Amino acid sequence: MTSLSTPSTAIAPWRSPLAHALHRNRSLPFSRYLQLATIRCDHTPANRTVVFRGFFAKTNQLMFISDSRSEKTDQIAQQVAAEACWYFTKTREQFRLLGDLTLVTASSEQTNLSDARTQLWQSISDSARLQFAWPQPKAPRSPDSAFSPPAPDAQIPPSTFCLLLLAISKVDHLALRGDPQSRCLYEKLASSNASNPHEQWQVTAVNP
Amino acid sequence: MTSLSTPSTAIAPWRSPLAHALHRNRSLPFSRYLQLATIRCDHTPANRTVVFRGFFAKTNQLMFISDSRSEKTDQIAQQVAAEACWYFTKTREQFRLLGDLTLVTASSEQTNLSDARTQLWQSISDSARLQFAWPQPKAPRSPDSAFSPPAPDAQIPPSTFCLLLLAISKVDHLALRGDPQSRCLYEKLASSNASNPHEQWQVTAVNP
Repeated sequence: MTSLSTPSTAIAPWRSPLAHALHRNRSLPFSRYLQLATIRCDHTPANRTVVFRGFFAKTNQLMFISDSRSEKTDQIAQQVAAEACWYFTKTREQFRLLGDLTLVTASSEQTNLSDARTQLWQSISDSARLQFAWPQPKAPRSPDSAFSPPAPDAQIPPSTFCLLLLAISKVDHLALRGDPQSRCLYEKLASSNASNPHEQWQVTAVNP
Repeated sequence: MTSLSTPSTAIAPWRSPLAHALHRNRSLPFSRYLQLATIRCDHTPANRTVVFRGFFAKTNQLMFISDSRSEKTDQIAQQVAAEACWYFTKTREQFRLLGDLTLVTASSEQTNLSDARTQLWQSISDSARLQFAWPQPKAPRSPDSAFSPPAPDAQIPPSTFCLLLLAISKVDHLALRGDPQSRCLYEKLASSNASNPHEQWQVTAVNP
């Protein structure tokens, strides 16, 4: 079964099963954790856990936070493609989300992105904020005292704080529960683009 | 703190904290699920959940199972590098395991690999075995009846069944519990190779 989503909706059709999964797994805080794969400058894959921070404004772009000192920054500068793998343990379903990353840094000049970065900084916990004042990640271990810096300004994000956006072009949703299992592919059509809120998606039920 | 592991041990030093994590999270069946990132033929990253099936014989290679009809097969033929991201929800720790994949298929001529493939087939559940007799993955959805094929031979693996091995060269272990968090890097030294059971690893405590 292949069908086109209604072109008048700005919400991509994979958002509905994803919202349903988030709701049904909401009792488990780690249900907002997913694994983000990127490609290193030496062309090997990199894979790490990130925390889903909601969608950017009225788009279908996932938001994460990132430290400008992490290796992701260099990787994204060279290759924006990324695939997130999001497994929900309670409902036993997986979303694979392929797309392109945008890193919003302190020097971003686009007002809406810069504002979103600031708002996200203000919304995260004190302990999450503190990590951006910690010593250089992956440098030889600093003394414990270096991990108790003064609390950073809760209003103005430090230069190390980045907003990371993932704009999705393909989604592969696999539900392991059910006999037989179900699997659905979502593909954004080429006519869609970031400036067009009326994205068109092709939705296809496939074999698991 | 940087130190060399004892060269006389065949067990890599990251195996100890990993075994500890598996033990402490053993009440949760999904603690054996991890996310494996590879690179697609179009150079975008791919990322999916796989199930840890133990270590291959007396090596430090992780075992997974794979369907020869899945896209992983083509990806591995072109690029063997992969990174597994393994997050343990109960103990809040992450292992990033970078290495090279080996796909052991029905036509593998190495006896020890071929035997391991057969043994793994015999050890998995009936329902796991049945999936290798299901219709072509990702093809347009087949009727439900196609997902109830006759049970495959439990002794002899079908041609679709593959053993997937991940030989590790780098590990990044991050423990989020603890104040401050701890992070440790393990790197296999170039002098080590698969035929030498006495792998040498460099272990370095770094900033989280």
